[in-house]
Amino acid sequence: MDCIFCKIVNKELPADIVYENENVLAFKDIHPKAAVHILVVPKIHIESINSENSENIVGDLILAAKNIIKRDNITGYKLLFNIGREGGQMVDHLHMHLLAGNPS
Amino acid sequence: MDCIFCKIVNKELPADIVYENENVLAFKDIHPKAAVHILVVPKIHIESINSENSENIVGDLILAAKNIIKRDNITGYKLLFNIGREGGQMVDHLHMHLLAGNPS
Repeated sequence: MDCIFCKIVNKELPADIVYENENVLAFKDIHPKAAVHILVVPKIHIESINSENSENIVGDLILAAKNIIKRDNITGYKLLFNIGREGGQMVDHLHMHLLAGNPS
Repeated sequence: MDCIFCKIVNKELPADIVYENENVLAFKDIHPKAAVHILVVPKIHIESINSENSENIVGDLILAAKNIIKRDNITGYKLLFNIGREGGQMVDHLHMHLLAGNPS
């Protein structure tokens, strides 16, 4: 498997990890678009929201984001999925952007 | 209940409805930010992603979006939640933006 996010999940590549539980890993985006820009990913490899049954794991991603924003006292934020190249998806491992604060 | 999206769900206010199932209603945003700009909302009133157990209904919204994009042959798209006033949430009934095509 040559997936960069799988390698981050497996700790084979470095990342600035901000949250982890049994099913989910969250780490800082290396090209932040806002003061807070975190990627929340399932540990299992799923290509995108378009993949079959993706809707069954999105709840885990949302819950992880809610835990992060409570822990970090973030009051307003955005959760964003880009799907497909035309939708702006750059890595084919499902990921949710958590964005807060001013654009950077 | 003085919630504009509840009124749309209850057909007390008009909207350009594009999809409906038992749990979810989807309709065109009246101020579109892209060629396709649809709001996907749960029929029950939940204030936001920050509300307790919101993660349990997000799967229904995602599945509805997937049904819409398959039906309408949309290849690339974005799914966005704005949470809290600082996050850009304007209506306090949980809603997911489905965006595709060029910004408008």
